[in-house]
Amino acid sequence: MTPGLSRNDMIEYGSDIVIYIDRRRRRLLRIAGGKIFSSDRGTLKLDDIVGLHYGDRVRTSLNINAWLLRPLLIDYLELGIKRVTQIIYPKDLGLILILLGVAPGLKVLEIGVGTGNTTIVLANFVKPNGHVYGYELRKEFLMIAQHNLEMTNLQQYVTLKLRDAREGIDESGIDAAVVDIPDPWNVLDPLHTALKHSAPVVFFLPTMNQIIRLFDALNKHRGFIDIRCYETLLREMELSPESIRPSTIMVGHTGYILYARKVFKDSDTKA
Amino acid sequence: MTPGLSRNDMIEYGSDIVIYIDRRRRRLLRIAGGKIFSSDRGTLKLDDIVGLHYGDRVRTSLNINAWLLRPLLIDYLELGIKRVTQIIYPKDLGLILILLGVAPGLKVLEIGVGTGNTTIVLANFVKPNGHVYGYELRKEFLMIAQHNLEMTNLQQYVTLKLRDAREGIDESGIDAAVVDIPDPWNVLDPLHTALKHSAPVVFFLPTMNQIIRLFDALNKHRGFIDIRCYETLLREMELSPESIRPSTIMVGHTGYILYARKVFKDSDTKA
Amino acid sequence: MTPGLSRNDMIEYGSDIVIYIDRRRRRLLRIAGGKIFSSDRGTLKLDDIVGLHYGDRVRTSLNINAWLLRPLLIDYLELGIKRVTQIIYPKDLGLILILLGVAPGLKVLEIGVGTGNTTIVLANFVKPNGHVYGYELRKEFLMIAQHNLEMTNLQQYVTLKLRDAREGIDESGIDAAVVDIPDPWNVLDPLHTALKHSAPVVFFLPTMNQIIRLFDALNKHRGFIDIRCYETLLREMELSPESIRPSTIMVGHTGYILYARKVFKDSDTKA
Amino acid sequence: MTPGLSRNDMIEYGSDIVIYIDRRRRRLLRIAGGKIFSSDRGTLKLDDIVGLHYGDRVRTSLNINAWLLRPLLIDYLELGIKRVTQIIYPKDLGLILILLGVAPGLKVLEIGVGTGNTTIVLANFVKPNGHVYGYELRKEFLMIAQHNLEMTNLQQYVTLKLRDAREGIDESGIDAAVVDIPDPWNVLDPLHTALKHSAPVVFFLPTMNQIIRLFDALNKHRGFIDIRCYETLLREMELSPESIRPSTIMVGHTGYILYARKVFKDSDTKA
Repeated sequence: MTPGLSRNDMIEYGSDIVIYIDRRRRRLLRIAGGKIFSSDRGTLKLDDIVGLHYGDRVRTSLNINAWLLRPLLIDYLELGIKRVTQIIYPKDLGLILILLGVAPGLKVLEIGVGTGNTTIVLANFVKPNGHVYGYELRKEFLMIAQHNLEMTNLQQYVTLKLRDAREGIDESGIDAAVVDIPDPWNVLDPLHTALKHSAPVVFFLPTMNQIIRLFDALNKHRGFIDIRCYETLLREMELSPESIRPSTIMVGHTGYILYARKVFKDSDTKA
Repeated sequence: MTPGLSRNDMIEYGSDIVIYIDRRRRRLLRIAGGKIFSSDRGTLKLDDIVGLHYGDRVRTSLNINAWLLRPLLIDYLELGIKRVTQIIYPKDLGLILILLGVAPGLKVLEIGVGTGNTTIVLANFVKPNGHVYGYELRKEFLMIAQHNLEMTNLQQYVTLKLRDAREGIDESGIDAAVVDIPDPWNVLDPLHTALKHSAPVVFFLPTMNQIIRLFDALNKHRGFIDIRCYETLLREMELSPESIRPSTIMVGHTGYILYARKVFKDSDTKA
Repeated sequence: MTPGLSRNDMIEYGSDIVIYIDRRRRRLLRIAGGKIFSSDRGTLKLDDIVGLHYGDRVRTSLNINAWLLRPLLIDYLELGIKRVTQIIYPKDLGLILILLGVAPGLKVLEIGVGTGNTTIVLANFVKPNGHVYGYELRKEFLMIAQHNLEMTNLQQYVTLKLRDAREGIDESGIDAAVVDIPDPWNVLDPLHTALKHSAPVVFFLPTMNQIIRLFDALNKHRGFIDIRCYETLLREMELSPESIRPSTIMVGHTGYILYARKVFKDSDTKA
Repeated sequence: MTPGLSRNDMIEYGSDIVIYIDRRRRRLLRIAGGKIFSSDRGTLKLDDIVGLHYGDRVRTSLNINAWLLRPLLIDYLELGIKRVTQIIYPKDLGLILILLGVAPGLKVLEIGVGTGNTTIVLANFVKPNGHVYGYELRKEFLMIAQHNLEMTNLQQYVTLKLRDAREGIDESGIDAAVVDIPDPWNVLDPLHTALKHSAPVVFFLPTMNQIIRLFDALNKHRGFIDIRCYETLLREMELSPESIRPSTIMVGHTGYILYARKVFKDSDTKA
């Protein structure tokens, strides 16, 4: 079932579920007959869970508490989907959503789908009447992306294309775009054509060298303004009754978020 | 016009517009007859803009380039809405959206509306068929929140209440909640009742003392699990052709994001 | 040989040396007859190195470049000393040195020596005519600390004591202090007595709960002012010719640095 | 009087003093007859302070507590010295000291003295028998640097030169160097010659463009290894009894610290 789609509170065969024992012991599963959840804190027969409700607590075979949770978007991102490529993390995706003003009904372009992590988030926020168009060169990634979309039941909001966006983009009137490829400077012309006038784009860039090169290319292109670049850092706190502190180890870098908005170029301005 | 709602590309009387000269000179305005945009880089008569398109470039009275942009959500947040209270920043709101899995169609509860900054973002992502229920104690803030919602044309997706949520919440079956009040430990019981089982909540907490106290209260309450606490940092880069570097001054702290999910308490578990 | 002490450029038996192949393959060794350096990039007979100079390059048995470096303080901290306890990192130690104004000739007190990592840094900066007095409760740590001081040849600048500083401190007229114990609020009275008037102290505190409790205790004690609290973050960049970027993983937290200065208490003020 | 130099506890004419009322009201002054300290919390006649001790408390004309503190290095850096140029901050200077292993007795080279902020810190840690050699092109900065050194009584440990280090460095056998000029790639040859073999250098670089260019130049030069690049962030906490939290505004960037160590180049290796 899709994140947020199923409004049914009862757990059935075919339901997705998060079994939560503690922060380190949580798993996202689809309920099927005969299936067993097993951990070092005991096992659960999934057949026994059918008919219970999201939010219920059960006991494992070792008499340890386990809670039955409805999977949310964040659970699919953290526990559910297959990753092969480097993904854009929730800390960055959240800011990207706000910067792009992604909203139900929008047509969003994604250049560099990878295995579909970002695609799922975009689809979740443009549904039910918007659409995501995703370009990806590598067939093996696209197949995983398709699998991930089906698992989250978002495939009807997405069109995936095994295509090189640098050679042209079919769509036009795009409301917002996310570009996550190593050489975004090579896609500026087709991107500019595909975007609606005044529409925003976010480029995701792991290295400083890419910022410098893309910023230079955007300046020369002259069809993008309001160019900004951000970086986000996420710290998690470790919570225990007498000791609350930031975690010792954190993700120190994922990528830079470079934002810009399309305007008419001198050559195509009518004003 | 709402962020993302108007699909009309032509600028009309009553249209909202961002006039963009450079990063420091950008303004969000509603087009009206006789109105003048003025800056140290020259003026523009708004009447002259009517009939042009979003994405067009014009010249100010001092012959400086100015671009006409369609306002996005981020423009309303940065340039448009009135702020009186401390707000939750986009860096935090983005992560909150992802953590809560906010999506079109959901029923979201907001405790501590303030002047409506968060409300606008939530409404933007639950529309067209979801709803936000907002509680706020202070009438003067609620009036500004109402004004801000009308400016962004999102008022039909929101019900604002001049009420103390600590004394009870009318709604039930809530899909997700955001709590931004100084004493969130006092609202746990009505919050627990209002949330759908397994539904998530985010508490926004400026101080370490609040983390410690709320974490203790949640442990004692026993109706919330998967308790996590995050902090986000956002750095902007200064972009100029030969000098790209993080900004000298940044926002070093806004608040901690404490996340939890409702489960049945022992007293109300049926399992 | 001590960091910075040996001014001899020639490598001899008994010399300490860093063999550097690349960032991941570097080792701090003491030259002895018959000893072999071995790595996946080949071996070196240490006898063959004797008579060469710091800064020279040799080839391993696999014909890979290896450089012979004089160990610096940072090499002893990163590669040389034994660690058992959690240590204070260079990023924090550097700021602590500046905050305390540690300088040659000062008398410095260290409460909570652990295995001597901080002690080595303090000794390095108070020598040749200053002194460090270190208190530690756990004998097994003190023995390692003694070993580490001898390895860095700094033992003559340090007096280590197997003592509980909470029960009293022998020294007086202390110029600066570092306190790294779990319950620093229990050492305020003897610490206040030991410090010279107006002298600074730094407390190293891993958790938020400790900040809150110590700040409260200092306010009640009334013998310390100019109370400040800092946190440092260190990011390393990954350097490769076409790809410069912050490292993916970083240390996200070590501890908070709480700084204060001793003043006369009302009860002991003569003014 | 120098930081840490005067061991006299009594305040005399000519003594430096920090008058501390609260974090925002603290001033570094030299005691002179007839001089008045004035603030919005009242005034103090400095004549009245003579004969009191560091650590004493007095009352201002408005009966507010004021403490008399001995100035530390950090006080001179924060309150005492004149700044014209962008300086290296304590958070960075501390790490630089540790990375370079600056210690009493060393010969340290500084290229790009500016107004002497870094020079003071280096001098403080190499005294009494080490020395700092500082190069600076701009006479007006050098005069301020000289003034700052005299104020902190460290001038005997420093030789300042109005010279372009890119054209040659007089000294040799340098133990450690700090380079803070816009084009450090132009100083690599004279720097390499001046450094003792195996000695470390730190380059301070505000921009990403400089990292990329210097890293490229160091690779081509081949006389430096163990190249690393760091960035430090410092957060201050706001302390009040019921509300402890990081400050809202922080310094988000000063510069990157690029570290390297001199080795023999192929052309000058004897091995």
